[in-house]
Amino acid sequence: MSAISRFQAIRSNKVFETFIIVVIMASALLIGLKTYDIPESVHIGIRWLDILITIIFIIEISIRFAAEERKLDFFKSGWNIFDVVIVAVSLIPIDNTDMALVARLVRVFRVLRMVSIIPELRMLLNSLLVALPRLGYVMALMFIIFYMYAAVGSLFFEEINTFLWGDIAVSMLTLFRVMTFEDWTDVMYEVMAVYGWAWIYFVSFIFLTAFAFLNMVIGIVVNVLEEEHQREIEADPDQISLKDLHEEVVALRQLLEKQR
Amino acid sequence: MSAISRFQAIRSNKVFETFIIVVIMASALLIGLKTYDIPESVHIGIRWLDILITIIFIIEISIRFAAEERKLDFFKSGWNIFDVVIVAVSLIPIDNTDMALVARLVRVFRVLRMVSIIPELRMLLNSLLVALPRLGYVMALMFIIFYMYAAVGSLFFEEINTFLWGDIAVSMLTLFRVMTFEDWTDVMYEVMAVYGWAWIYFVSFIFLTAFAFLNMVIGIVVNVLEEEHQREIEADPDQISLKDLHEEVVALRQLLEKQR
Amino acid sequence: MSAISRFQAIRSNKVFETFIIVVIMASALLIGLKTYDIPESVHIGIRWLDILITIIFIIEISIRFAAEERKLDFFKSGWNIFDVVIVAVSLIPIDNTDMALVARLVRVFRVLRMVSIIPELRMLLNSLLVALPRLGYVMALMFIIFYMYAAVGSLFFEEINTFLWGDIAVSMLTLFRVMTFEDWTDVMYEVMAVYGWAWIYFVSFIFLTAFAFLNMVIGIVVNVLEEEHQREIEADPDQISLKDLHEEVVALRQLLEKQR
Amino acid sequence: MSAISRFQAIRSNKVFETFIIVVIMASALLIGLKTYDIPESVHIGIRWLDILITIIFIIEISIRFAAEERKLDFFKSGWNIFDVVIVAVSLIPIDNTDMALVARLVRVFRVLRMVSIIPELRMLLNSLLVALPRLGYVMALMFIIFYMYAAVGSLFFEEINTFLWGDIAVSMLTLFRVMTFEDWTDVMYEVMAVYGWAWIYFVSFIFLTAFAFLNMVIGIVVNVLEEEHQREIEADPDQISLKDLHEEVVALRQLLEKQR
Repeated sequence: MSAISRFQAIRSNKVFETFIIVVIMASALLIGLKTYDIPESVHIGIRWLDILITIIFIIEISIRFAAEERKLDFFKSGWNIFDVVIVAVSLIPIDNTDMALVARLVRVFRVLRMVSIIPELRMLLNSLLVALPRLGYVMALMFIIFYMYAAVGSLFFEEINTFLWGDIAVSMLTLFRVMTFEDWTDVMYEVMAVYGWAWIYFVSFIFLTAFAFLNMVIGIVVNVLEEEHQREIEADPDQISLKDLHEEVVALRQLLEKQR
Repeated sequence: MSAISRFQAIRSNKVFETFIIVVIMASALLIGLKTYDIPESVHIGIRWLDILITIIFIIEISIRFAAEERKLDFFKSGWNIFDVVIVAVSLIPIDNTDMALVARLVRVFRVLRMVSIIPELRMLLNSLLVALPRLGYVMALMFIIFYMYAAVGSLFFEEINTFLWGDIAVSMLTLFRVMTFEDWTDVMYEVMAVYGWAWIYFVSFIFLTAFAFLNMVIGIVVNVLEEEHQREIEADPDQISLKDLHEEVVALRQLLEKQR
Repeated sequence: MSAISRFQAIRSNKVFETFIIVVIMASALLIGLKTYDIPESVHIGIRWLDILITIIFIIEISIRFAAEERKLDFFKSGWNIFDVVIVAVSLIPIDNTDMALVARLVRVFRVLRMVSIIPELRMLLNSLLVALPRLGYVMALMFIIFYMYAAVGSLFFEEINTFLWGDIAVSMLTLFRVMTFEDWTDVMYEVMAVYGWAWIYFVSFIFLTAFAFLNMVIGIVVNVLEEEHQREIEADPDQISLKDLHEEVVALRQLLEKQR
Repeated sequence: MSAISRFQAIRSNKVFETFIIVVIMASALLIGLKTYDIPESVHIGIRWLDILITIIFIIEISIRFAAEERKLDFFKSGWNIFDVVIVAVSLIPIDNTDMALVARLVRVFRVLRMVSIIPELRMLLNSLLVALPRLGYVMALMFIIFYMYAAVGSLFFEEINTFLWGDIAVSMLTLFRVMTFEDWTDVMYEVMAVYGWAWIYFVSFIFLTAFAFLNMVIGIVVNVLEEEHQREIEADPDQISLKDLHEEVVALRQLLEKQR
């Protein structure tokens, strides 16, 4: 048995996989634990566990790398690159306290390794990402609506409330808030005190975005249903279409007519 | 007529069933009544009614138990166990006032007997519970998103507002609040005063969870539609597929060709 | 031409119908106008217009009644009874100011005549009402959830805030508010200050109701799609099923086999 | 090569198209930039860029006009008229400061040229507009509900809060707010302090509008699915229906019976 096939055996071993999932869970728990007020002694324990987890991750990725037939193929998977980067960054020694925050942030991203290790979660995330570009044009239309309303908003309402309408970026954030219905009447009443017509601005914006959003949702539903339908057809290559049947019956008729 | 079949006759008797539903409704009304300020005399009446209801429930469950051919089968149904536990707990004598609250709490759960006694409600709840595991992976992904954002939140924002970002559990509750759009801008503006980039944190979180939620809903719709379709096919076992028809026509042709 | 058929001609006359719709609109505008501060002179004009509208309505209903072949059939339609009641009530003379509010309220309901006169709106409302009983069991389950949570809420939280949790009715209103996500964290944080576990109560309630609501929506979608499918099948009575075709082909085969 | 076909060549040139999109984007960026506090020198630069953009737009529209075989056809497209108006209005010289706001407002609408130039966005917006009239009757029913509740609201609650219930228009805005669940309990509790039954008003309104809205959404979904289905059928004109097949088989049988 070659070295590569031995590594492949380890990689696809159920116990090995489960062990790694448990280690990622432990790493997630450590991250959660650190947000609580804990005595110094526990802190030292956490630091040692953290080093242990990093070592296990290095070994795991090394095995997965060693199991690859062609070493370059390893870096063709985005998830593999993600795993390597996450582990590599946690190896950088951090002495000053300024970088400690960044170091903890990187450890948070380790939780995402859960997605990279469990195939079902990876597929789910992929399917989410695949759906995004389809929404491209609706997103673009939505952005144009936001941009125009934000431009009008910061043009007229800037002097009323600089915090909400100061510039176009802040106005877009305010409009996002209005879209989520979050205290949107407070924003409107304040503006209506100066411009009586302002309710048209807000109500029309809510209608437009709600309508565009609704359209997006319906578009996705129809898309998904069609894909499902397509997959069903492809899943059964022996399936007979009405056209096939028709051709068969027509051939039969011709046969009979010749017999006469 | 044997004893068991006599009990079965009672159990499936419409009048008996309706009577039990009325008793459960009365029990629910008593629970509601107790939340109002009522004179002491009514309180005594309620206590007597409560005992009466408990006795009726004991008799009813005894009949249902006696009607079972194999006594062990009775405990195979989760709803039966639920009924027995609810009634058994209300039998425990409570003397001190500390336990009075628990006793009242148990009586509230009696209302759930409504679900255990009306088959349509039981089916509805079952179908709800059956749908849950299908959502398992989406739930897991959602939890990972929540956990990571909560970790980042309590890492950066803890000093700004301990009440909202004190530890990872509290942060997750805050994020759940943000997901429901409940005064989420108050939370954001407070944090943005220190970290200007914080809007990215909140807007990206809202987009991610909204998108995952949307995906979940669409997934359920497609699932339900497919199941419905499947059930339709199974409901009609005589249904002819296009394939069957095709085979029939092909056989016909072969017959004709042999005739020549 | 008999008297009845003459009335029927008026009833189905397009000009007559449009005129009545215009009168109802005028009546609606009057109702709206009355909510503004208007000079006394306009008020007198409104009162006269109001009397004129009432007279037109009486004439219109009389014509519709006279056009009916069997007079009793007129009262078989719920909308006719509604029309008669609305007009009859506005005939009651009101002298004292106490009843003036009720009189104005009745005039508001006249706007609903718009629904009774335009067939498309009547159909739409009917289809809404037809959909309601289908939701019966989901509604019942929803009510049981609300009732139990309200009972628990007023049991534990009454002393914290009597206004929100005073009795079971008030608690149900508070829970309805929580379901709409309206400042629900204010309600929760107040309660959590005493009972730390209260977040479970609120989060579980939101999950349960959101899940039940989702289920209801999906149920309606599936129902509507099926009905649409059914209607399509019924719309084409000549439609051939695969089964019919199969029988035809089998008969053909038997014919051929006999020929041999 | 004629002059017209030369202009048509330019119009359909990919480079030309991309260049115009870039110019529109630059115009949008300028609008955004103006909402920030910028030094006077930049302001002058923006003014020059603005003139440049206007000139480019004039040239572009002239080319598109010149490329048209029949000049009148150019004004048959609503988007062309929109483009001409937007550019024409920005040519009007504005001296006094009062009109400066309007001039900036017109420049905001230039962003909409993005929709008129990108076919996919134009199609998306058209499909949104096409869907609107289908919702006509649901909208009308919704308006009637709003109008009636607003009439009742301003009748009873005007004295409690003139700002929210002053007249029918203001009441409708308040009800729109209630429909979006925006601090609706604040509105309700204020009114309930005087009229204890007011919760019925609000809860019934929320139920009615939520139900009508739900119905609208489902209506659109079903509509879109049906249209998709119809388009599929039309896309394949050679498609064989079960009826065609049946006729074919019946003809076959008659042929055989004659043969006997």
